[in-house]
Amino acid sequence: MGILDGKKGIIFGALNEQSLAWKVAEAAHKEGAQFTLTNAPMAMRLGEINGLAEKTGSKVIPADATSMEDLNNLFEESMEELGGKLDFILHSIGMSVNVRKKIPYPEMNYEYQHKGWDVSAVSFHKVMQTAWKKDAMNEWGSILALSYIAAQRVFPDYNDMADNKSYLESIARNFGYYFGKEKKVRVNTISQSPTMTTAGIGVTGFGGFLGYADAISPLGNASADDCANYCVSLFSDYTKMVTLQNLFHDGGFSYTGISKEVMDHFIDDKL
Amino acid sequence: MGILDGKKGIIFGALNEQSLAWKVAEAAHKEGAQFTLTNAPMAMRLGEINGLAEKTGSKVIPADATSMEDLNNLFEESMEELGGKLDFILHSIGMSVNVRKKIPYPEMNYEYQHKGWDVSAVSFHKVMQTAWKKDAMNEWGSILALSYIAAQRVFPDYNDMADNKSYLESIARNFGYYFGKEKKVRVNTISQSPTMTTAGIGVTGFGGFLGYADAISPLGNASADDCANYCVSLFSDYTKMVTLQNLFHDGGFSYTGISKEVMDHFIDDKL
Amino acid sequence: MGILDGKKGIIFGALNEQSLAWKVAEAAHKEGAQFTLTNAPMAMRLGEINGLAEKTGSKVIPADATSMEDLNNLFEESMEELGGKLDFILHSIGMSVNVRKKIPYPEMNYEYQHKGWDVSAVSFHKVMQTAWKKDAMNEWGSILALSYIAAQRVFPDYNDMADNKSYLESIARNFGYYFGKEKKVRVNTISQSPTMTTAGIGVTGFGGFLGYADAISPLGNASADDCANYCVSLFSDYTKMVTLQNLFHDGGFSYTGISKEVMDHFIDDKL
Amino acid sequence: MGILDGKKGIIFGALNEQSLAWKVAEAAHKEGAQFTLTNAPMAMRLGEINGLAEKTGSKVIPADATSMEDLNNLFEESMEELGGKLDFILHSIGMSVNVRKKIPYPEMNYEYQHKGWDVSAVSFHKVMQTAWKKDAMNEWGSILALSYIAAQRVFPDYNDMADNKSYLESIARNFGYYFGKEKKVRVNTISQSPTMTTAGIGVTGFGGFLGYADAISPLGNASADDCANYCVSLFSDYTKMVTLQNLFHDGGFSYTGISKEVMDHFIDDKL
Repeated sequence: MGILDGKKGIIFGALNEQSLAWKVAEAAHKEGAQFTLTNAPMAMRLGEINGLAEKTGSKVIPADATSMEDLNNLFEESMEELGGKLDFILHSIGMSVNVRKKIPYPEMNYEYQHKGWDVSAVSFHKVMQTAWKKDAMNEWGSILALSYIAAQRVFPDYNDMADNKSYLESIARNFGYYFGKEKKVRVNTISQSPTMTTAGIGVTGFGGFLGYADAISPLGNASADDCANYCVSLFSDYTKMVTLQNLFHDGGFSYTGISKEVMDHFIDDKL
Repeated sequence: MGILDGKKGIIFGALNEQSLAWKVAEAAHKEGAQFTLTNAPMAMRLGEINGLAEKTGSKVIPADATSMEDLNNLFEESMEELGGKLDFILHSIGMSVNVRKKIPYPEMNYEYQHKGWDVSAVSFHKVMQTAWKKDAMNEWGSILALSYIAAQRVFPDYNDMADNKSYLESIARNFGYYFGKEKKVRVNTISQSPTMTTAGIGVTGFGGFLGYADAISPLGNASADDCANYCVSLFSDYTKMVTLQNLFHDGGFSYTGISKEVMDHFIDDKL
Repeated sequence: MGILDGKKGIIFGALNEQSLAWKVAEAAHKEGAQFTLTNAPMAMRLGEINGLAEKTGSKVIPADATSMEDLNNLFEESMEELGGKLDFILHSIGMSVNVRKKIPYPEMNYEYQHKGWDVSAVSFHKVMQTAWKKDAMNEWGSILALSYIAAQRVFPDYNDMADNKSYLESIARNFGYYFGKEKKVRVNTISQSPTMTTAGIGVTGFGGFLGYADAISPLGNASADDCANYCVSLFSDYTKMVTLQNLFHDGGFSYTGISKEVMDHFIDDKL
Repeated sequence: MGILDGKKGIIFGALNEQSLAWKVAEAAHKEGAQFTLTNAPMAMRLGEINGLAEKTGSKVIPADATSMEDLNNLFEESMEELGGKLDFILHSIGMSVNVRKKIPYPEMNYEYQHKGWDVSAVSFHKVMQTAWKKDAMNEWGSILALSYIAAQRVFPDYNDMADNKSYLESIARNFGYYFGKEKKVRVNTISQSPTMTTAGIGVTGFGGFLGYADAISPLGNASADDCANYCVSLFSDYTKMVTLQNLFHDGGFSYTGISKEVMDHFIDDKL
């Protein structure tokens, strides 16, 4: 028996075994949840997700999260498949063409920016608007998106994904207000430690950055498995009154200014 | 089987059935935890805590949380009683003589202030110093204290308890750094909705304030039972990498600037 | 002699006497600054800006702030007119079709959203990219945009402008990093009290909201004139090391949880 | 003519030429302010402050800032000397015996802690209570205290001064509420870059830390002279509606997560 027994949901963004969404699916399954898996049709072609679907007894429903039509279909099929309304949604989607093409932030390409904003942030509003219009969420349901601390502080290589995450977190607050007042549903984002996923690997200097974050954080970087456990707690009934928040899950990184380990690197740099 | 099976702890501050600590004790017991209960000898005399002890199979060990000697004894007896090191601690202690005597903040009595600071904030450091020196915490243990949003924003009737809560949250961060780095133990505070406890009732105009908070919060005020569930999740292994934080548990109060319900009260107050 | 003597700049967004940008232009002129004024060609047709231009000895250069071509021309003409590089820029631009058409946030129209995001937020990046590529800023220059606390907390009627302001503030941080490191230029946003401007008047229930904000804020709502003075201080050399920040200018609203005046409205709403 | 012409104040904490308060006194004098200087009688014996007094035409009035009697006398003498009520106060006082004696945070000595809390934080309340009871502030006056970002994030060597600064900032908010509502006076703290003052030099590893902060901050560390200019702007009428805030003055440190310069130190530490 698990803490998500009887709960139903949709999980966006499981690409391969490194994905946070993949780990969440495994953990939610272990805790008794049923869910559908979805990703962009293009990402589907890689086919790894079928292994996860089999392992967790889930149906895969391709959907472009920027298309209201695809989302409409996804929610209908999911509720049919799961036999009712939903208790949780995980949004783990992010992409920046400016990052991929290593275009420095001050030289931003605005078409690429628009694309990344639409995929990484607006898609979260579209997912919730679809759920809202279909009245697809059960009372005391939980909607989560994955974010990053670049929404609060500058991490230069994170580029326009920082702006997208700020927008994403703002959507969580604003839609969370309505979902709370009218549907008793909570909406939050999790700000996770840097994690060696396919998305992470694309960021310049990611290895050095992982080392820095690990050296600052009193508990070290949070792993993808830890993140999955935390997501499970936020889908469960133990956290029913937590809403409109961006929740740091990072081993203490966000509230540590400096650590002994980091200072040792600067000991000879005296002014 | 519960999510705290096999976990051992100490719970400070259960006074009567309205107390947050009382609810946490009940919830932790239900989830399989074992713990000792403690409160100030003076609060003990009221005797209600014995009912809770019986119900949860817990030993009551009186201790003045400002006395290192009492705390020393409490930790020794607790580890002996529970048969080993601890996995969790709840600090739910707060008191302001300035509040009780309704002394306005600008006219603060500094002896009363000192007393309240010692009981409400420094006691948390003393509890952790005792645990630290005795090496009383198991790895991946969790230490929690209860706080309030007056640590971030002004709620005038909260008086010097606001300053005490700021200090308390700072202790959580700073001791959390050391407990994380050296013992893999996490330390957090929960910033709970205003709750109709014995402590709450003492605050001037508390009824009106409860109504305001409830009208702002998208999910309404979080109850003491919800708070207990949230504490349980933070003692469990689902949240191992959450540390150094002040976690709002308030139905969305902290991130809502205004609600329709509140604005309706001001509709005729146009400037 | 004024504290902006010899400083040159561009001021975006002066529409009429109520505009914050209008007040900033007047105050900057009084302090000895020289600047050009700009607004969207459509807003120009209303013609009021010419009075301000005359009063402050400024040239008006129409520019659509979403057009890199227009911005390019604006910066070239401005530097020619002013005889050199710039010391300050004010971005006071915001517009939401969803607000204007009173489309509730959960029913967001995504074309309108895109338009508002482009005008209200991306335009700030475009302004800075233009300045960056032309190397148009003097060292220790200051770039400011006007924001609102809806970027941090939910004010439901503010709709998608809340998300736009979050994105705007993120741009300030991220571009501010590069402008700081490479050009010694600071970038900040000011989060101003609700103000009875043409933009403010468009928001549903704005009158009631002004009353609420005024009743919470210990100093009352900050006026447009006060805001202009604050902007002047941030363009001056008194604030050279303030950067990457969102600065509240709101009479204390942002750090007040409740005031006596507000609580009096809820005194009979006891739970 | 300066921006503090005709303004009167009290400046606490000028010890020697490195002191922030010393620089503020010089800058305020240059801008036309008149003020008295004060410090603890023990600090006075070193005598350097007399040079500053002479230079700025100020009277020195010794006062122990933890003594209500001394403060009472200080305010009376100051108003007599300056010929009227005050427009500004600077509180630049901080001391931790635990830091001086290099006692690690988890082993805190509670008598030393009490002493440091009283001197570094409670003194700010006492200063304001004295001003409040004597009705010593003019309308639109400005009260400032100096703080540090250790109040928000952990900097381990800052020890219990971190907790004291949290308490200090809380006092600013809470007293600021009353001073705003009833006297139109604003109260803020400035969170300054680490600065090589006598106090700073006492912190273990301060040199290495200065280097780190400078490498993170897009504009580099803010100097004591820059800090003085910023204080002047906050005493002036340009910032009348800024209150209840902790204002970062740090070259962008607080909102920068990592910089290229810092990441270069970790480039070989890949996990």
